[in-house]
Amino acid sequence: MKQAIGVIDSGVGGLTVAHELMRQLPKEKLIYLGDTSRCPYGPRSKEEVQQFTWEMVNFLLEKDIKMLVVACNTATAFALQSLKENLNIPVIGVIQPGSRAAIKFTKTNHVGIIGTEGTVRSNAYTNALKNIKDELEVSALACPMFVPMVEQGILEGQQAREVVEDTLSPLLQYSKMDTLILGCTHYPLLKNTIQSVVGEEITIISSSEETARETSTILDVHHLLNKDDYYPVHQFYTTGDLEIFIEISRSIFKEPHLQMVTIEQANLHQLQDS
Amino acid sequence: MKQAIGVIDSGVGGLTVAHELMRQLPKEKLIYLGDTSRCPYGPRSKEEVQQFTWEMVNFLLEKDIKMLVVACNTATAFALQSLKENLNIPVIGVIQPGSRAAIKFTKTNHVGIIGTEGTVRSNAYTNALKNIKDELEVSALACPMFVPMVEQGILEGQQAREVVEDTLSPLLQYSKMDTLILGCTHYPLLKNTIQSVVGEEITIISSSEETARETSTILDVHHLLNKDDYYPVHQFYTTGDLEIFIEISRSIFKEPHLQMVTIEQANLHQLQDS
Repeated sequence: MKQAIGVIDSGVGGLTVAHELMRQLPKEKLIYLGDTSRCPYGPRSKEEVQQFTWEMVNFLLEKDIKMLVVACNTATAFALQSLKENLNIPVIGVIQPGSRAAIKFTKTNHVGIIGTEGTVRSNAYTNALKNIKDELEVSALACPMFVPMVEQGILEGQQAREVVEDTLSPLLQYSKMDTLILGCTHYPLLKNTIQSVVGEEITIISSSEETARETSTILDVHHLLNKDDYYPVHQFYTTGDLEIFIEISRSIFKEPHLQMVTIEQANLHQLQDS
Repeated sequence: MKQAIGVIDSGVGGLTVAHELMRQLPKEKLIYLGDTSRCPYGPRSKEEVQQFTWEMVNFLLEKDIKMLVVACNTATAFALQSLKENLNIPVIGVIQPGSRAAIKFTKTNHVGIIGTEGTVRSNAYTNALKNIKDELEVSALACPMFVPMVEQGILEGQQAREVVEDTLSPLLQYSKMDTLILGCTHYPLLKNTIQSVVGEEITIISSSEETARETSTILDVHHLLNKDDYYPVHQFYTTGDLEIFIEISRSIFKEPHLQMVTIEQANLHQLQDS
Protein backbone atom coordinates (compact mmCIF):
# COMPACT_ATOMS: atom_id res chain seq x y z
CA MET A 1 0.00 0.00 0.00
CA LYS A 2 2.07 2.91 -1.28
CA GLN A 3 -0.68 5.46 -0.67
CA ALA A 4 0.40 8.17 1.75
CA ILE A 5 -0.44 8.80 5.38
CA GLY A 6 -2.07 12.22 5.70
CA VAL A 7 -0.91 14.38 8.61
CA ILE A 8 -2.59 17.64 9.63
CA ASP A 9 -1.61 20.24 12.22
CA SER A 10 -2.34 23.83 13.11
CA GLY A 11 1.22 24.70 12.12
CA VAL A 12 4.71 23.29 12.64
CA GLY A 13 4.12 21.34 15.89
CA GLY A 14 2.91 18.30 13.99
CA LEU A 15 6.30 18.09 12.31
CA THR A 16 7.48 16.33 15.49
CA VAL A 17 4.88 13.65 14.70
CA ALA A 18 6.02 13.57 11.05
CA HIS A 19 9.62 13.21 12.21
CA GLU A 20 8.70 10.25 14.42
CA LEU A 21 6.63 8.68 11.62
CA MET A 22 9.65 8.88 9.30
CA ARG A 23 11.89 7.36 11.99
CA GLN A 24 9.50 4.57 13.01
CA LEU A 25 7.93 3.91 9.58
CA PRO A 26 10.63 4.75 7.04
CA LYS A 27 8.78 3.02 4.16
CA GLU A 28 5.65 5.13 4.54
CA LYS A 29 5.05 8.26 2.50
CA LEU A 30 3.66 11.32 4.32
CA ILE A 31 1.58 14.21 3.04
CA TYR A 32 1.68 16.92 5.72
CA LEU A 33 -0.44 20.04 5.89
CA GLY A 34 0.29 22.74 8.47
CA ASP A 35 -2.26 25.52 8.80
CA THR A 36 0.45 27.98 9.80
CA SER A 37 -1.47 31.03 8.62
CA ARG A 38 -4.21 30.41 11.20
CA CYS A 39 -1.98 28.99 14.00
CA PRO A 40 -2.44 28.78 16.99
CA TYR A 41 -5.68 26.82 17.32
CA GLY A 42 -5.37 26.68 21.14
CA PRO A 43 -7.37 29.85 21.95
CA ARG A 44 -10.03 29.35 19.21
CA SER A 45 -13.62 28.15 19.65
CA LYS A 46 -14.64 24.54 19.14
CA GLU A 47 -16.67 25.42 16.02
CA GLU A 48 -13.78 27.28 14.42
CA VAL A 49 -11.29 24.48 15.11
CA GLN A 50 -13.73 21.95 13.64
CA GLN A 51 -14.25 24.04 10.49
CA PHE A 52 -10.51 24.60 9.92
CA THR A 53 -9.78 20.93 10.56
CA TRP A 54 -12.33 19.78 7.97
CA GLU A 55 -10.87 22.21 5.42
CA MET A 56 -7.45 20.64 5.94
CA VAL A 57 -8.85 17.11 5.73
CA ASN A 58 -10.66 17.87 2.46
CA PHE A 59 -7.38 19.15 0.98
CA LEU A 60 -5.66 15.85 1.88
CA LEU A 61 -8.53 13.60 0.79
CA GLU A 62 -8.05 14.86 -2.77
CA LYS A 63 -4.54 13.44 -2.60
CA ASP A 64 -5.77 9.88 -1.91
CA ILE A 65 -4.47 9.14 1.58
CA LYS A 66 -4.88 5.72 3.25
CA MET A 67 -4.95 6.97 6.85
CA LEU A 68 -5.27 10.31 8.64
CA VAL A 69 -3.14 11.45 11.59
CA VAL A 70 -4.51 14.47 13.44
CA ALA A 71 -1.16 15.71 14.78
CA CYS A 72 -2.65 18.59 16.73
CA ASN A 73 -4.01 18.16 20.24
CA THR A 74 -6.56 20.96 19.94
CA ALA A 75 -7.94 19.58 16.66
CA THR A 76 -8.00 16.10 18.20
CA ALA A 77 -9.91 17.36 21.23
CA PHE A 78 -12.55 19.12 19.14
CA ALA A 79 -12.79 17.27 15.80
CA LEU A 80 -11.58 13.66 16.14
CA GLN A 81 -15.00 12.20 16.86
CA SER A 82 -16.58 13.85 13.81
CA LEU A 83 -13.67 12.77 11.58
CA LYS A 84 -13.91 9.17 12.78
CA GLU A 85 -17.64 9.08 12.15
CA ASN A 86 -17.46 10.57 8.67
CA LEU A 87 -14.29 9.20 7.05
CA ASN A 88 -13.91 5.70 5.67
CA ILE A 89 -10.16 5.54 6.36
CA PRO A 90 -8.57 4.95 9.80
CA VAL A 91 -8.12 8.16 11.79
CA ILE A 92 -5.86 8.61 14.81
CA GLY A 93 -5.43 11.63 17.05
CA VAL A 94 -2.64 12.45 19.46
CA ILE A 95 -4.62 12.21 22.71
CA GLN A 96 -5.39 8.50 22.96
CA PRO A 97 -1.83 7.28 22.22
CA GLY A 98 -0.33 9.62 24.83
CA SER A 99 -2.96 8.54 27.34
CA ARG A 100 -2.38 4.83 26.78
CA ALA A 101 1.38 5.31 27.11
CA ALA A 102 0.88 7.20 30.40
CA ILE A 103 -1.31 4.39 31.75
CA LYS A 104 1.45 1.93 30.84
CA PHE A 105 4.20 3.99 32.53
CA THR A 106 2.63 5.34 35.72
CA LYS A 107 3.23 3.38 38.89
CA THR A 108 1.74 5.95 41.31
CA ASN A 109 -1.45 6.41 39.20
CA HIS A 110 -0.85 10.19 39.22
CA VAL A 111 -0.53 11.63 35.72
CA GLY A 112 0.20 15.23 34.76
CA ILE A 113 -0.79 16.83 31.45
CA ILE A 114 0.38 20.06 29.91
CA GLY A 115 -1.18 21.53 26.78
CA THR A 116 -2.80 24.55 25.20
CA GLU A 117 -5.78 26.29 26.82
CA GLY A 118 -8.10 24.63 24.28
CA THR A 119 -6.80 21.14 24.99
CA VAL A 120 -6.89 21.58 28.76
CA ARG A 121 -10.31 23.26 28.68
CA SER A 122 -11.72 20.37 26.64
CA ASN A 123 -10.79 17.83 29.36
CA ALA A 124 -9.98 15.47 26.50
CA TYR A 125 -6.94 13.90 28.20
CA THR A 126 -8.63 13.58 31.58
CA ASN A 127 -11.61 11.88 29.92
CA ALA A 128 -9.41 9.60 27.82
CA LEU A 129 -7.39 8.53 30.87
CA LYS A 130 -10.31 8.08 33.25
CA ASN A 131 -12.52 6.28 30.72
CA ILE A 132 -9.91 3.55 30.69
CA LYS A 133 -8.77 3.65 34.33
CA ASP A 134 -10.88 5.75 36.63
CA GLU A 135 -8.69 5.46 39.73
CA LEU A 136 -6.09 7.69 38.04
CA GLU A 137 -5.48 11.12 39.52
CA VAL A 138 -4.98 13.65 36.77
CA SER A 139 -3.53 17.18 37.02
CA ALA A 140 -3.78 19.32 33.89
CA LEU A 141 -2.13 22.67 33.29
CA ALA A 142 -2.43 25.05 30.34
CA CYS A 143 0.90 26.50 29.18
CA PRO A 144 -0.05 29.35 26.80
CA MET A 145 3.54 30.64 26.55
CA PHE A 146 5.05 27.45 25.18
CA VAL A 147 3.71 27.42 21.58
CA PRO A 148 4.67 31.05 20.82
CA MET A 149 8.10 30.40 22.36
CA VAL A 150 8.67 27.31 20.18
CA GLU A 151 7.43 29.12 17.06
CA GLN A 152 10.14 31.72 17.78
CA GLY A 153 12.75 28.96 18.02
CA ILE A 154 13.47 29.45 21.74
CA LEU A 155 13.93 25.86 22.87
CA GLU A 156 16.79 25.84 25.38
CA GLY A 157 18.86 28.26 27.42
CA GLN A 158 18.14 30.66 30.28
CA GLN A 159 14.98 32.26 28.87
CA ALA A 160 13.34 28.96 27.96
CA ARG A 161 14.20 27.53 31.36
CA GLU A 162 12.71 30.47 33.24
CA VAL A 163 9.44 30.34 31.30
CA VAL A 164 9.17 26.58 31.79
CA GLU A 165 9.98 26.82 35.51
CA ASP A 166 7.45 29.59 36.15
CA THR A 167 4.74 27.89 34.13
CA LEU A 168 5.14 24.42 35.63
CA SER A 169 5.62 25.45 39.26
CA PRO A 170 1.94 24.97 40.29
CA LEU A 171 1.95 21.49 38.80
CA LEU A 172 5.19 20.54 40.54
CA GLN A 173 3.99 21.97 43.82
CA TYR A 174 0.65 20.18 44.08
CA SER A 175 0.81 17.04 41.94
CA LYS A 176 2.30 13.69 42.94
CA MET A 177 2.62 12.75 39.27
CA ASP A 178 5.34 10.28 38.18
CA THR A 179 4.35 10.66 34.49
CA LEU A 180 3.87 13.87 32.50
CA ILE A 181 2.16 13.92 29.10
CA LEU A 182 3.35 16.56 26.64
CA GLY A 183 -0.18 17.20 25.39
CA CYS A 184 0.85 19.47 22.53
CA THR A 185 2.96 18.47 19.55
CA HIS A 186 5.08 21.61 19.89
CA TYR A 187 6.30 20.57 23.33
CA PRO A 188 8.67 17.73 22.33
CA LEU A 189 10.90 20.54 21.02
CA LEU A 190 11.12 21.75 24.65
CA LYS A 191 11.57 18.24 26.07
CA ASN A 192 15.14 18.69 27.32
CA THR A 193 14.26 21.90 29.12
CA ILE A 194 11.07 20.41 30.59
CA GLN A 195 12.89 17.26 31.73
CA SER A 196 15.58 19.30 33.50
CA VAL A 197 12.90 21.36 35.27
CA VAL A 198 10.72 18.43 36.41
CA GLY A 199 13.62 16.11 37.23
CA GLU A 200 14.68 12.71 35.95
CA GLU A 201 12.29 10.75 38.19
CA ILE A 202 9.29 11.92 36.16
CA THR A 203 8.69 10.02 32.90
CA ILE A 204 7.85 12.39 30.07
CA ILE A 205 5.46 11.03 27.43
CA SER A 206 5.78 12.56 23.97
CA SER A 207 2.43 12.32 22.23
CA SER A 208 4.38 12.55 18.95
CA GLU A 209 6.42 9.38 19.56
CA GLU A 210 3.39 7.51 20.85
CA THR A 211 1.16 8.55 17.97
CA ALA A 212 3.74 7.33 15.45
CA ARG A 213 3.95 4.04 17.33
CA GLU A 214 0.16 3.58 17.24
CA THR A 215 -0.03 4.63 13.59
CA SER A 216 2.22 1.64 12.95
CA THR A 217 -0.14 -0.60 14.94
CA ILE A 218 -3.25 0.66 13.15
CA LEU A 219 -1.73 0.32 9.67
CA ASP A 220 -0.81 -3.24 10.58
CA VAL A 221 -4.30 -4.07 11.90
CA HIS A 222 -5.89 -2.70 8.71
CA HIS A 223 -3.36 -4.43 6.42
CA LEU A 224 -2.22 -1.02 5.13
CA LEU A 225 1.52 -1.20 5.84
CA ASN A 226 3.74 -0.73 2.83
CA LYS A 227 5.82 -3.91 2.59
CA ASP A 228 7.78 -3.13 -0.57
CA ASP A 229 11.25 -1.66 -0.61
CA TYR A 230 10.40 1.92 -1.22
CA TYR A 231 11.87 5.13 0.10
CA PRO A 232 9.29 7.79 -0.37
CA VAL A 233 9.45 11.46 -1.19
CA HIS A 234 7.26 13.17 1.38
CA GLN A 235 5.10 16.18 0.50
CA PHE A 236 4.72 19.01 3.01
CA TYR A 237 2.27 21.88 2.60
CA THR A 238 1.83 25.05 4.61
CA THR A 239 -0.94 27.62 4.41
CA GLY A 240 1.50 30.27 5.62
CA ASP A 241 4.91 31.67 4.78
CA LEU A 242 6.97 29.14 2.84
CA GLU A 243 10.40 30.43 3.91
CA ILE A 244 9.62 30.31 7.64
CA PHE A 245 8.11 26.84 7.28
CA ILE A 246 11.21 25.55 5.49
CA GLU A 247 13.47 27.09 8.13
CA ILE A 248 11.57 25.46 11.01
CA SER A 249 11.47 22.14 9.13
CA ARG A 250 15.25 22.30 8.80
CA SER A 251 15.62 22.75 12.54
CA ILE A 252 13.42 19.71 13.24
CA PHE A 253 14.64 17.31 10.55
CA LYS A 254 18.15 16.17 10.02
CA GLU A 255 19.43 16.76 6.48
CA PRO A 256 19.03 13.18 5.17
CA HIS A 257 15.33 13.39 5.98
CA LEU A 258 14.80 16.87 4.61
CA GLN A 259 16.26 15.86 1.26
CA MET A 260 13.34 13.52 0.76
CA VAL A 261 10.74 16.22 1.34
CA THR A 262 9.12 18.68 -1.03
CA ILE A 263 7.55 21.74 0.58
CA GLU A 264 4.83 23.75 -1.12
CA GLN A 265 2.22 26.34 -0.37
CA ALA A 266 -1.33 25.05 0.06
CA ASN A 267 -4.49 26.88 -0.97
CA LEU A 268 -7.36 25.53 1.07
CA HIS A 269 -10.82 25.82 -0.40
CA GLN A 270 -12.79 28.52 1.34
CA LEU A 271 -9.78 29.48 3.41
CA GLN A 272 -10.86 32.11 5.87
CA ASP A 273 -9.44 33.60 9.01
CA SER A 274 -11.46 34.41 12.06
CA MET B 1 -18.84 -4.36 25.48
CA LYS B 2 -18.58 -6.53 28.58
CA GLN B 3 -17.52 -9.61 26.63
CA ALA B 4 -14.14 -10.90 27.75
CA ILE B 5 -10.71 -10.71 26.16
CA GLY B 6 -9.40 -14.24 25.60
CA VAL B 7 -5.76 -14.87 26.48
CA ILE B 8 -3.88 -18.05 25.61
CA ASP B 9 -0.41 -19.22 26.57
CA SER B 10 1.61 -22.41 26.70
CA GLY B 11 1.58 -22.14 30.50
CA VAL B 12 2.10 -19.47 33.14
CA GLY B 13 4.25 -17.02 31.15
CA GLY B 14 1.20 -15.34 29.65
CA LEU B 15 0.11 -14.41 33.17
CA THR B 16 2.57 -11.49 32.85
CA VAL B 17 0.45 -10.30 29.92
CA ALA B 18 -2.75 -10.88 31.92
CA HIS B 19 -1.26 -8.90 34.80
CA GLU B 20 -0.48 -5.97 32.49
CA LEU B 21 -3.94 -6.19 30.89
CA MET B 22 -5.53 -5.91 34.36
CA ARG B 23 -3.28 -2.97 35.23
CA GLN B 24 -3.73 -1.08 31.96
CA LEU B 25 -7.36 -2.07 31.27
CA PRO B 26 -8.98 -2.56 34.69
CA LYS B 27 -12.54 -2.57 33.27
CA GLU B 28 -11.90 -5.47 30.91
CA LYS B 29 -12.70 -9.06 31.82
CA LEU B 30 -10.12 -11.73 30.94
CA ILE B 31 -10.54 -15.41 30.24
CA TYR B 32 -7.08 -16.98 30.38
CA LEU B 33 -6.10 -20.46 29.31
CA GLY B 34 -2.63 -21.82 30.05
CA ASP B 35 -1.69 -25.14 28.45
CA THR B 36 0.54 -25.99 31.39
CA SER B 37 0.28 -29.75 30.85
CA ARG B 38 2.00 -29.46 27.44
CA CYS B 39 4.39 -26.59 28.29
CA PRO B 40 6.99 -25.68 27.03
CA TYR B 41 6.06 -25.07 23.39
CA GLY B 42 9.55 -23.72 22.58
CA PRO B 43 11.17 -26.99 21.46
CA ARG B 44 8.04 -28.32 19.62
CA SER B 45 7.46 -28.49 15.87
CA LYS B 46 5.48 -25.84 14.02
CA GLU B 47 2.65 -28.27 13.27
CA GLU B 48 2.31 -29.30 16.89
CA VAL B 49 2.29 -25.71 18.16
CA GLN B 50 -0.37 -24.81 15.58
CA GLN B 51 -2.56 -27.75 16.58
CA PHE B 52 -2.28 -27.04 20.32
CA THR B 53 -2.96 -23.34 19.76
CA TRP B 54 -6.14 -24.01 17.78
CA GLU B 55 -7.34 -26.37 20.53
CA MET B 56 -6.93 -23.57 23.06
CA VAL B 57 -8.64 -21.05 20.80
CA ASN B 58 -11.64 -23.33 20.25
CA PHE B 59 -12.00 -23.67 24.03
CA LEU B 60 -12.15 -19.87 24.40
CA LEU B 61 -14.42 -19.27 21.41
CA GLU B 62 -17.14 -21.24 23.19
CA LYS B 63 -16.97 -18.66 25.96
CA ASP B 64 -17.83 -15.77 23.58
CA ILE B 65 -14.69 -13.59 23.60
CA LYS B 66 -14.49 -10.23 21.77
CA MET B 67 -10.73 -10.32 21.09
CA LEU B 68 -7.91 -12.87 21.30
CA VAL B 69 -4.46 -12.22 22.76
CA VAL B 70 -1.86 -14.86 21.90
CA ALA B 71 0.33 -14.32 24.94
CA CYS B 72 2.96 -16.84 23.90
CA ASN B 73 5.79 -15.94 21.57
CA THR B 74 6.16 -19.45 20.16
CA ALA B 75 2.43 -19.69 19.38
CA THR B 76 2.54 -16.19 17.88
CA ALA B 77 5.48 -17.12 15.67
CA PHE B 78 3.82 -20.27 14.34
CA ALA B 79 0.05 -19.70 14.50
CA LEU B 80 -0.79 -15.96 14.44
CA GLN B 81 -1.21 -15.76 10.69
CA SER B 82 -3.63 -18.66 10.55
CA LEU B 83 -5.62 -17.29 13.51
CA LYS B 84 -5.89 -13.85 11.90
CA GLU B 85 -7.06 -15.34 8.63
CA ASN B 86 -9.69 -17.59 10.19
CA LEU B 87 -11.19 -15.68 13.13
CA ASN B 88 -13.69 -12.84 12.84
CA ILE B 89 -12.53 -11.12 16.05
CA PRO B 90 -9.35 -9.02 16.38
CA VAL B 91 -6.26 -11.09 17.18
CA ILE B 92 -2.98 -9.79 18.56
CA GLY B 93 0.25 -11.65 19.22
CA VAL B 94 3.20 -10.62 21.37
CA ILE B 95 5.77 -10.20 18.60
CA GLN B 96 4.52 -7.10 16.74
CA PRO B 97 3.95 -4.95 19.86
CA GLY B 98 7.43 -5.70 21.21
CA SER B 99 8.92 -4.98 17.79
CA ARG B 100 7.14 -1.65 17.39
CA ALA B 101 8.20 -0.59 20.88
CA ALA B 102 11.83 -1.48 20.08
CA ILE B 103 11.69 0.59 16.88
CA LYS B 104 10.38 3.50 18.94
CA PHE B 105 13.12 3.19 21.59
CA THR B 106 16.30 2.36 19.66
CA LYS B 107 18.58 5.25 18.79
CA THR B 108 21.49 3.13 17.51
CA ASN B 109 19.25 0.93 15.32
CA HIS B 110 20.76 -2.16 16.96
CA VAL B 111 18.13 -4.35 18.63
CA GLY B 112 18.70 -7.54 20.61
CA ILE B 113 16.11 -10.29 21.08
CA ILE B 114 16.07 -13.15 23.54
CA GLY B 115 13.49 -15.93 23.38
CA THR B 116 12.91 -19.66 23.21
CA GLU B 117 14.56 -21.83 20.56
CA GLY B 118 11.26 -21.95 18.64
CA THR B 119 10.84 -18.19 18.59
CA VAL B 120 14.44 -17.50 17.62
CA ARG B 121 14.46 -20.27 15.00
CA SER B 122 11.30 -18.85 13.41
CA ASN B 123 13.00 -15.47 12.80
CA ALA B 124 9.63 -13.92 13.63
CA TYR B 125 11.07 -10.91 15.48
CA THR B 126 13.78 -10.27 12.92
CA ASN B 127 11.19 -10.36 10.15
CA ALA B 128 8.74 -8.15 12.06
CA LEU B 129 11.46 -5.57 12.76
CA LYS B 130 13.03 -5.56 9.30
CA ASN B 131 9.70 -5.52 7.45
CA ILE B 132 9.07 -2.14 9.04
CA LYS B 133 12.62 -0.76 9.15
CA ASP B 134 15.18 -2.73 7.19
CA GLU B 135 18.26 -0.76 8.27
CA LEU B 136 17.93 -2.25 11.75
CA GLU B 137 20.65 -4.62 12.93
CA VAL B 138 19.13 -7.47 14.87
CA SER B 139 20.90 -9.97 17.15
CA ALA B 140 18.78 -12.86 18.40
CA LEU B 141 19.74 -15.38 21.07
CA ALA B 142 17.86 -18.45 22.30
CA CYS B 143 17.85 -18.84 26.09
CA PRO B 144 16.58 -22.39 26.70
CA MET B 145 17.38 -22.30 30.44
CA PHE B 146 15.16 -19.32 31.27
CA VAL B 147 11.66 -20.84 31.03
CA PRO B 148 12.44 -23.91 33.16
CA MET B 149 14.16 -21.62 35.70
CA VAL B 150 11.10 -19.33 35.91
CA GLU B 151 8.71 -22.30 36.16
CA GLN B 152 10.76 -23.38 39.21
CA GLY B 153 10.37 -19.91 40.72
CA ILE B 154 14.08 -19.00 40.50
CA LEU B 155 13.87 -15.33 39.55
CA GLU B 156 16.63 -13.53 41.48
CA GLY B 157 19.71 -14.30 43.54
CA GLN B 158 23.08 -15.85 42.79
CA GLN B 159 21.90 -18.85 40.74
CA ALA B 160 19.56 -16.78 38.53
CA ARG B 161 22.29 -14.20 37.96
CA GLU B 162 24.88 -16.82 36.97
CA VAL B 163 22.54 -18.48 34.46
CA VAL B 164 21.56 -15.11 32.96
CA GLU B 165 25.19 -13.94 32.76
CA ASP B 166 26.40 -17.12 31.10
CA THR B 167 23.49 -17.21 28.67
CA LEU B 168 23.65 -13.57 27.60
CA SER B 169 27.43 -13.24 27.34
CA PRO B 170 27.62 -13.88 23.54
CA LEU B 171 24.98 -11.22 22.94
CA LEU B 172 26.71 -8.67 25.16
CA GLN B 173 30.08 -9.44 23.58
CA TYR B 174 29.12 -9.03 19.93
CA SER B 175 26.01 -6.81 19.74
CA LYS B 176 25.93 -3.02 19.88
CA MET B 177 22.26 -3.11 20.89
CA ASP B 178 20.79 -0.28 22.94
CA THR B 179 17.40 -2.04 23.16
CA LEU B 180 16.69 -5.64 24.19
CA ILE B 181 13.34 -7.33 23.57
CA LEU B 182 12.25 -9.93 26.11
CA GLY B 183 10.79 -12.16 23.41
CA CYS B 184 9.17 -14.61 25.80
CA THR B 185 6.38 -13.82 28.24
CA HIS B 186 8.18 -15.70 31.01
CA TYR B 187 11.14 -13.34 30.90
CA PRO B 188 9.55 -10.24 32.51
CA LEU B 189 9.73 -12.28 35.75
CA LEU B 190 13.53 -12.21 35.30
CA LYS B 191 13.62 -8.54 34.29
CA ASN B 192 15.47 -7.25 37.37
CA THR B 193 18.17 -9.87 37.00
CA ILE B 194 18.48 -9.31 33.24
CA GLN B 195 18.65 -5.52 33.68
CA SER B 196 21.43 -5.80 36.25
CA VAL B 197 23.41 -8.11 33.92
CA VAL B 198 23.04 -5.99 30.74
CA GLY B 199 23.37 -2.63 32.53
CA GLU B 200 21.10 0.39 32.83
CA GLU B 201 22.06 1.88 29.45
CA ILE B 202 20.16 -0.86 27.58
CA THR B 203 16.38 -0.35 27.39
CA ILE B 204 14.54 -3.59 28.06
CA ILE B 205 11.24 -4.04 26.21
CA SER B 206 8.69 -6.29 27.88
CA SER B 207 6.49 -7.82 25.23
CA SER B 208 3.87 -8.28 27.97
CA GLU B 209 3.56 -4.55 28.75
CA GLU B 210 3.58 -3.63 25.07
CA THR B 211 0.99 -6.23 24.13
CA ALA B 212 -1.38 -4.94 26.82
CA ARG B 213 -0.82 -1.40 25.53
CA GLU B 214 -1.67 -2.42 21.95
CA THR B 215 -4.66 -4.48 23.07
CA SER B 216 -5.99 -1.20 24.45
CA THR B 217 -5.37 0.49 21.07
CA ILE B 218 -7.03 -2.29 19.09
CA LEU B 219 -10.11 -2.46 21.34
CA ASP B 220 -10.45 1.32 20.88
CA VAL B 221 -10.09 1.13 17.09
CA HIS B 222 -12.75 -1.59 16.90
CA HIS B 223 -15.09 0.20 19.36
CA LEU B 224 -14.85 -2.76 21.73
CA LEU B 225 -13.68 -1.02 24.91
CA ASN B 226 -15.93 -1.49 27.91
CA LYS B 227 -16.99 2.01 28.96
CA ASP B 228 -19.28 1.11 31.85
CA ASP B 229 -18.23 1.08 35.47
CA TYR B 230 -17.60 -2.58 35.91
CA TYR B 231 -14.98 -4.48 37.83
CA PRO B 232 -14.86 -7.90 36.37
CA VAL B 233 -14.20 -11.32 37.82
CA HIS B 234 -11.57 -12.88 35.58
CA GLN B 235 -11.60 -16.59 34.73
CA PHE B 236 -8.32 -18.49 34.52
CA TYR B 237 -8.02 -22.04 33.25
CA THR B 238 -5.07 -24.43 33.22
CA THR B 239 -4.73 -27.77 31.48
CA GLY B 240 -2.28 -28.86 34.16
CA ASP B 241 -2.00 -29.08 37.93
CA LEU B 242 -4.38 -26.64 39.60
CA GLU B 243 -2.40 -26.23 42.83
CA ILE B 244 0.85 -25.31 41.04
CA PHE B 245 -0.99 -22.90 38.75
CA ILE B 246 -2.63 -21.13 41.73
CA GLU B 247 0.73 -20.91 43.50
CA ILE B 248 2.47 -19.32 40.51
CA SER B 249 -0.49 -16.98 39.95
CA ARG B 250 -0.15 -15.81 43.54
CA SER B 251 3.52 -14.99 43.00
CA ILE B 252 2.70 -12.90 39.90
CA PHE B 253 -0.47 -11.13 41.06
CA LYS B 254 -0.81 -9.01 44.14
CA GLU B 255 -3.63 -10.13 46.43
CA PRO B 256 -6.23 -7.50 45.38
CA HIS B 257 -5.99 -8.78 41.84
CA LEU B 258 -6.06 -12.46 42.73
CA GLN B 259 -9.29 -12.03 44.69
CA MET B 260 -11.05 -11.16 41.46
CA VAL B 261 -9.94 -14.31 39.67
CA THR B 262 -11.46 -17.77 39.56
CA ILE B 263 -9.09 -20.56 38.58
CA GLU B 264 -10.33 -23.84 37.15
CA GLN B 265 -9.09 -26.86 35.31
CA ALA B 266 -9.73 -26.91 31.56
CA ASN B 267 -10.46 -29.99 29.48
CA LEU B 268 -9.55 -29.24 25.90
CA HIS B 269 -11.36 -31.22 23.24
CA GLN B 270 -9.08 -33.81 21.71
CA LEU B 271 -6.34 -32.94 24.19
CA GLN B 272 -3.26 -34.90 23.30
CA ASP B 273 0.37 -34.73 24.17
CA SER B 274 3.16 -35.45 21.76
